[in-house]
Amino acid sequence: MKIFGQHYQTIWETDPQVNSISIIDQRWLPHKLQIVELRILPDFVAAIKEMMIRGAPLIGVASAYGLYFATKNVDDKQFEAAFSDAVNQLLSTRPTAVNLRNSLDLCKKSLQNCSNSDDKTKVLLETARKMLSNDVEICKKIGLHGSKLLRKIFEQKGDTVNVLTHCNAGWLATIDYGTALAPIYFAKDKGIPIHVWVDETRPRLQGAKLTAFELLHEEVSHTIVCDNSGGLLMQKGLVDIVIVGTDRTTRKGDVANKIGTYLKALSAFDNKIPFYVALPSSSIDWSIENAFQEIPLEIRSENEVKFVAGKLGNEVVEVLVSPEQSNALNYAFDITPARLISGFITERGICRADEESLLSLFPEMKI
Amino acid sequence: MKIFGQHYQTIWETDPQVNSISIIDQRWLPHKLQIVELRILPDFVAAIKEMMIRGAPLIGVASAYGLYFATKNVDDKQFEAAFSDAVNQLLSTRPTAVNLRNSLDLCKKSLQNCSNSDDKTKVLLETARKMLSNDVEICKKIGLHGSKLLRKIFEQKGDTVNVLTHCNAGWLATIDYGTALAPIYFAKDKGIPIHVWVDETRPRLQGAKLTAFELLHEEVSHTIVCDNSGGLLMQKGLVDIVIVGTDRTTRKGDVANKIGTYLKALSAFDNKIPFYVALPSSSIDWSIENAFQEIPLEIRSENEVKFVAGKLGNEVVEVLVSPEQSNALNYAFDITPARLISGFITERGICRADEESLLSLFPEMKI
Repeated sequence: MKIFGQHYQTIWETDPQVNSISIIDQRWLPHKLQIVELRILPDFVAAIKEMMIRGAPLIGVASAYGLYFATKNVDDKQFEAAFSDAVNQLLSTRPTAVNLRNSLDLCKKSLQNCSNSDDKTKVLLETARKMLSNDVEICKKIGLHGSKLLRKIFEQKGDTVNVLTHCNAGWLATIDYGTALAPIYFAKDKGIPIHVWVDETRPRLQGAKLTAFELLHEEVSHTIVCDNSGGLLMQKGLVDIVIVGTDRTTRKGDVANKIGTYLKALSAFDNKIPFYVALPSSSIDWSIENAFQEIPLEIRSENEVKFVAGKLGNEVVEVLVSPEQSNALNYAFDITPARLISGFITERGICRADEESLLSLFPEMKI
Repeated sequence: MKIFGQHYQTIWETDPQVNSISIIDQRWLPHKLQIVELRILPDFVAAIKEMMIRGAPLIGVASAYGLYFATKNVDDKQFEAAFSDAVNQLLSTRPTAVNLRNSLDLCKKSLQNCSNSDDKTKVLLETARKMLSNDVEICKKIGLHGSKLLRKIFEQKGDTVNVLTHCNAGWLATIDYGTALAPIYFAKDKGIPIHVWVDETRPRLQGAKLTAFELLHEEVSHTIVCDNSGGLLMQKGLVDIVIVGTDRTTRKGDVANKIGTYLKALSAFDNKIPFYVALPSSSIDWSIENAFQEIPLEIRSENEVKFVAGKLGNEVVEVLVSPEQSNALNYAFDITPARLISGFITERGICRADEESLLSLFPEMKI
């Protein structure tokens, strides 16, 4: 998608020899467009851990490239050890998003028929590239399917469609287009008038910083609100549909997503507003049934709560907003039970949030 | 209550001649304890409007003092005009809290038997003083009644009682003790182990800034969380009870309170956690029935969303957290319907959130 009119993706091969991978360091958005090159495994681990890049689909693809860079100069003997060490390091960066694990599993599988380390690194690079282009295709399809929902609301309402979204599940969370925002971009392209309520999404403010930035540069009408506001907006009839992303969804249809998603789902349910989750199938964890017992919910540093980063003059600084001596707790995700979800927007179409409906779209996952 | 071990109230007469009123300028907490003197009506109007002082009970009392200062040097002829101009200016500062209107009404009523302006200003000062001491008594009673709820939970659980609160309804929102926090202070004094989850309360962060400050100085165990977190904490069984304040409550039991309260009430209801509103009767608007249609919900500056104030080195600065060109919307309150509320903690005891129960405690309000 566009930044100042120029097309970008979140991650790309810097040169034809793939000596490095370039990413947008999202920690500086919207204030600064900073491009960073990743060359060795620790670069990838740090980029994911420090949230230079984030978003379940994006860290899935980035981790595949990470495996390539971790093993590309390694001989046959060292390959196995280097590979599994890299897998472990990458897996430990962010525990909640399942895309990371799915992506690493796929990379492992892709090596099955390789005989030597040269072959293997070649295949790893191919796999990473395939995952990257797949992700773009998947997001396009989610955009296409989801835009039909928005068109339907527009046709019924005859007026601007108000979408509320939480966190950033836009192109910055994927390679391009996004998941939750893709339907908005596709609908807008088709001339459907859209306005987006952007939850600022404390503590890291991915809504105020990233979603607003995306929508601004794509010229989509939007308004930033505090996370506290969504309930009132729904009570007042100012929200027609909620669309969010997900970091991990169980086969039963329960959704782990950015902390606060559950509160918006409750409010949408209470106000009879459709609540959809945009869901690339790479975010489904088919192996688990009980979200509450089985999905690890990442706890991040309390400093993300106590300090807020923002622009002061031409600098980006962090300011302390609480008493220094008070403690804070920073769960990064919560779980929205399937009963509160109107449906999933997947690359294969839209379905209800239950096992039967998911399996009707993904019959190959039947046990 | 205490700051660095010394007892403070939020507002006091600076000298025996009442040449000015002193307040704690709460905009600088927790970083700086700044005392400000108010001498003329515009000082009071600005103090309330700029939220140097806030909290429904506190602005009620402050506005009574404001009337006194607006009229104390005015002769008989000018009194009526000066008085009603002051009422209008004070009323326009914050539209949602009913305490302001109730307080000004009470002042007006107190003048009924006065013959001249000297008498009137004398009575206004007496009225303001009475309202101040009344507020302290009311908060004490709320603390006493509410602490019984906490004791009951402690006796059932045999372990630390986890209270979640939103915004600041502590002593800084009243004269002393607070409303929602008073039960916590009283329970702690009686040896009941309490831990408080402090919603940071965007956009102005009254939780992170004021509630955490209060609890820290009163040595109450507490943890600051983003407003997004409460749902997960409840899902995980980490919240035993929610207690919040209110800016205006209808006779039907619907509650206007700080934006985001409704989301916490939904989550408490979904997780079968008791949700109480601490309610001085000055916050009840007996004149209205339909909260959604009749309570004006204040919209404040979008800059409160786009900028965050905090400490950088030894200075307090504001940093921009969103794209400069994006718009924000800043509703300050939402409405929690009575059906989600377990009960009210009033100065006359605890009751259910409905008209019948409220009237059983306040029978004089029967129409």
